[in-house]
Amino acid sequence: MNIRRSREYYLSDIPLEEALGLLDESLSGRPKLILMDSERVGIADSVGRVVYEDVYANHSSPTVNTAAMDGIALNSSLTVGASETSPLDVQIERDFNWVDTGDAMPSAFDAVIMAEDVTQLDEEHATIRSPATPYQHVRRIAEDIASPELLLKKGSRIRILDIPCLAASGNSDVKVSVKPKVAILPTGSELIPIGTEPMPGQVIEFNSVVVSKQVVEWGGDPNVVEPLPDEKDKIASRVLELTDSHDVVVVLAGSSAGSEDFTGEVLDEVGKILLHGVAIRPGHPIVIGFVNHVPVFGLPGYPSSTEITADIFLKRTLDHMIGGVNVRREKVNAVLSRKTVSPMGEDEFIRVTLGYVSNRYIATPASRGASMTLSMSRSDGVALIPSSTEGLEEGSEVSVELVRAKSEIDRTIILSGSDDIALHVLGGVLSEHYPGLRLATSSVGSVGGLIALSKGYAHLAGSHLLDPETGVYNQSAVKRFFPEGGVFLVDFVGRTQGLMVPPRNPMGIRSLASISESECVFINRQRGSGTRLFLDYKLEENGLDWQQVRGYQNEEYTHWAVAASIASGQSDVGLGIKAAADSAGLDFIPLGEEKYQLVVPGILETLDSDIAKLIEVLGSPELRNRIEVIGGYDVTDIGDVIQL
Amino acid sequence: MNIRRSREYYLSDIPLEEALGLLDESLSGRPKLILMDSERVGIADSVGRVVYEDVYANHSSPTVNTAAMDGIALNSSLTVGASETSPLDVQIERDFNWVDTGDAMPSAFDAVIMAEDVTQLDEEHATIRSPATPYQHVRRIAEDIASPELLLKKGSRIRILDIPCLAASGNSDVKVSVKPKVAILPTGSELIPIGTEPMPGQVIEFNSVVVSKQVVEWGGDPNVVEPLPDEKDKIASRVLELTDSHDVVVVLAGSSAGSEDFTGEVLDEVGKILLHGVAIRPGHPIVIGFVNHVPVFGLPGYPSSTEITADIFLKRTLDHMIGGVNVRREKVNAVLSRKTVSPMGEDEFIRVTLGYVSNRYIATPASRGASMTLSMSRSDGVALIPSSTEGLEEGSEVSVELVRAKSEIDRTIILSGSDDIALHVLGGVLSEHYPGLRLATSSVGSVGGLIALSKGYAHLAGSHLLDPETGVYNQSAVKRFFPEGGVFLVDFVGRTQGLMVPPRNPMGIRSLASISESECVFINRQRGSGTRLFLDYKLEENGLDWQQVRGYQNEEYTHWAVAASIASGQSDVGLGIKAAADSAGLDFIPLGEEKYQLVVPGILETLDSDIAKLIEVLGSPELRNRIEVIGGYDVTDIGDVIQL
Repeated sequence: MNIRRSREYYLSDIPLEEALGLLDESLSGRPKLILMDSERVGIADSVGRVVYEDVYANHSSPTVNTAAMDGIALNSSLTVGASETSPLDVQIERDFNWVDTGDAMPSAFDAVIMAEDVTQLDEEHATIRSPATPYQHVRRIAEDIASPELLLKKGSRIRILDIPCLAASGNSDVKVSVKPKVAILPTGSELIPIGTEPMPGQVIEFNSVVVSKQVVEWGGDPNVVEPLPDEKDKIASRVLELTDSHDVVVVLAGSSAGSEDFTGEVLDEVGKILLHGVAIRPGHPIVIGFVNHVPVFGLPGYPSSTEITADIFLKRTLDHMIGGVNVRREKVNAVLSRKTVSPMGEDEFIRVTLGYVSNRYIATPASRGASMTLSMSRSDGVALIPSSTEGLEEGSEVSVELVRAKSEIDRTIILSGSDDIALHVLGGVLSEHYPGLRLATSSVGSVGGLIALSKGYAHLAGSHLLDPETGVYNQSAVKRFFPEGGVFLVDFVGRTQGLMVPPRNPMGIRSLASISESECVFINRQRGSGTRLFLDYKLEENGLDWQQVRGYQNEEYTHWAVAASIASGQSDVGLGIKAAADSAGLDFIPLGEEKYQLVVPGILETLDSDIAKLIEVLGSPELRNRIEVIGGYDVTDIGDVIQL
Repeated sequence: MNIRRSREYYLSDIPLEEALGLLDESLSGRPKLILMDSERVGIADSVGRVVYEDVYANHSSPTVNTAAMDGIALNSSLTVGASETSPLDVQIERDFNWVDTGDAMPSAFDAVIMAEDVTQLDEEHATIRSPATPYQHVRRIAEDIASPELLLKKGSRIRILDIPCLAASGNSDVKVSVKPKVAILPTGSELIPIGTEPMPGQVIEFNSVVVSKQVVEWGGDPNVVEPLPDEKDKIASRVLELTDSHDVVVVLAGSSAGSEDFTGEVLDEVGKILLHGVAIRPGHPIVIGFVNHVPVFGLPGYPSSTEITADIFLKRTLDHMIGGVNVRREKVNAVLSRKTVSPMGEDEFIRVTLGYVSNRYIATPASRGASMTLSMSRSDGVALIPSSTEGLEEGSEVSVELVRAKSEIDRTIILSGSDDIALHVLGGVLSEHYPGLRLATSSVGSVGGLIALSKGYAHLAGSHLLDPETGVYNQSAVKRFFPEGGVFLVDFVGRTQGLMVPPRNPMGIRSLASISESECVFINRQRGSGTRLFLDYKLEENGLDWQQVRGYQNEEYTHWAVAASIASGQSDVGLGIKAAADSAGLDFIPLGEEKYQLVVPGILETLDSDIAKLIEVLGSPELRNRIEVIGGYDVTDIGDVIQL
């Protein structure tokens, strides 16, 4: 039995700007407590650290005049008038000395003539045939650094490029801000460590890894401590203890106002709450307070919330403590490829994938939800839907903070449309042939892909749309979306569609007809997907009505999701490709063959070079072999171009 | 005595493209030898590593249906028709169970109603007043990750954002490419370690630190070994030995064809040279070869050459070995603020500082020369002057690879003009008041500053130009450059100009007249600097001729450089500000006071917000105090605005 306790804590969301203001004020109000001390580190260990006080040159560089070439050093005034017709003989020691690059100049001499411009008579005599100008091929004293010149300013982050001038000016170490020690305390009775197989209701604890890596990136020194169960007193005494030996404490999960959420109460009891609840999504149930003057953050436990609230609040705090360094992520303006609804009154951060198509960035929102980890991993950036709107229309311009290098995004080919495992193989072979070039697929179904392509949201579409009247794939659909032409088709794979059922087919399904006759639950694909159309076509062909199929209205977006639904026992049967059934260990009942083709805008001969590379790779025997090995694919026509 | 040996090795520069082609070919021609093996690392240690083979989900996430809210789990079909007017009473176990966020859903139930929407009658009974939809507040099995979905592709670099989906899908470790072991061998008889005071002709060895940090950044594992003197046999046997236990060997310095350059010969003797000499600047005398199939790089020893050749050739090699990852620096297009001559036939990489002025990036070339370390440290980017040109005109557009975050460059105020230490103090106070905001000064003299400002190359100018006819500073000069107006003046400091002489004034200099009468060597400032004009004005005032001043034509660009020239004994006397004399430990003979003012475009009331912040900071008592402490400054009028 599960008894509810009465709620003592409620969180009230305040606007993000107000929360940041409160945080800034509380941090700068007590500089003595929050600013880090300094320490000296050797310059080899200083990269990425923040300069604590201005750094000056200890000595000039070079410290003396220095030969900048191999050759002879001499006094330039001696050489006036030397020429091919009146060469000048010089004698060692009296007139000149041999020098190598980097040698100190003999004090009487002010110029160097390169070895190749000197005729050596013997070891002690040489002839020169052109005059030298004063300080020719000489690195003058202090020409690089004039001591005590200012080298690095307080608050700057040391780069590899700073090492040479530090070393050359006699700075063997440098005074930097101490790294703030950040304790990271995971909480939750349901937590199990990475590497353990979760039982129902158990959760693998990885947020501590994420936050500790973030802390390292932001110049802090993380210390992940043993997780605690959801027990208030244990958490309270541990937080108190941690504030003794750390500059910041982060408590993971338990920050909301649920029956097993204690971070807020703990902060209230052993310290002081600064704020509890911010009107952002994900991450609104964040709590921030101070215990023994140490900032304590209760971050919400869903992975996306943890990562984003740390990025907003913890990073800002570390920046402040270290001394005002603010490296921000790069931003680009992008066009939103899909209408995105977001509640008024909340700043919502959505993760997006990005493509550079027709000279603009296209941002496609990833599956939302604070618990979604794969969409974090696939994301290229984060866009803000401001609290003042109820969302943004398709085609709106949004500012996106990048979480992937722009150079990588710029070389990503966006293929929108039907989902297929063979596309991953194509992407792999492409990246091997052309390092740096990536293929990203957006699984929106065949019709969705053609819509995206027609709007300029993708470089290519992938489609398997049968025209029941002609029996020909894709051509009529493509003509409908591109009435003016301007696109062509390239054959990719023929593939077998069929029914996926649990191993050993416990319900004895043999055909579509046997589904409609049985009690089994079907899992369908979304409207607009080629597989859904294939199903409808086959139902009609067999004289069946969709209403006879239980679960026809349950939709998933990919072959994988259909397979996973069946493998988990949630559904009994679904339609999809053999490769998906195989990889999930399901049985497969073939229903028919279909043609998967790529739709490419433009003319083959004048394609953008990256797209042309992709089409070229379609012809590689390696790709053919790797796809055939999967099973269920026919690659006979791969790479064939069909001009419409 | 220094005997020349006959040259055996000459390097012949080949074009950069050709060199890169040779390198690529030699690396991809032998994949077995050059591609790294794999190793498994725990996901906590995987950030930044490169995925060796595609990573798939081991299990789905969530593994079961899971409550997404605190509340009651029940069967949605039970709730049809529940409303305020016909509430539904439910009984625990039979109809519902209490669940917390993250709990596995009881198998019979498919929806959750939030605790706040439920009236709890007693521990076992509750009332609901609205229906639940199927899967409401339920995280469905596999909704995040459907096993065995593809998570990470071969060749991708693992990010912090990837950790959640790896952990959640049962991947506790991941197969990554082994980090290439890179031996770094400094050579040179003149080398001394960091922290040692150099004697004339000695050089502090820091290139090994630079290259080892670069190697870490590029995903390699550096091993800096003991430096060797310029002795061919020792170097040869060490290189041979190092190729046994490393994947790459880097020999620092000695890559050219001088009398003490042995890397080329060594490679020829114990291995095979791929190329020796590339038509780039800096860095042309690079040598690359293979010893025991291990790539060996002889990088030229000047700091800027080392850093750039490593960036071009070593990084490419590591990318290839690790598996085709190419993260490139971000680029911006910028306008070149100064004509830049560069030899035809050489690709020249010039380091530039950048400012964002009037909606365009302005690139200002830093002091060139492969030995210049301070200009490396101060640089914001690298621009290429292609081999096909003899240089670029002022105003040309150049593409600049950034070596500093764009967000930092975008918040940098560019002050062009006369050099002054008080500007550094201003910059410091500005950054403290407004973290993230930087002041960068470009020392081009007062006239140079006004020119830069009038061309839109700077945000502000700093000037102390006396009009001898009126005795008023700056106004007539500013009117000459801005005949239409549109700028105003802000008082910065009054400062004392005077003669800097060695400690205890050994030559007994008392005035300008005494210089012209003595044998002492003067060091002048460049034409267009206010200090140079001040000198000319004072000479005229005293009825003196510049030709009476020995060294009048020796020019330096900053007060620091003048002070350093005198401190080193290269010159005997120069004109400058007291602060420069003080910091170099020189004596100072005051000659007069002058007014240093800032020239600001626009109207005070409608200034760009960052510039307005700078003007606001001019009024801070803290700034006033910190400048007064230096000595030689009058801050009475600081911050006063003079509208022209």
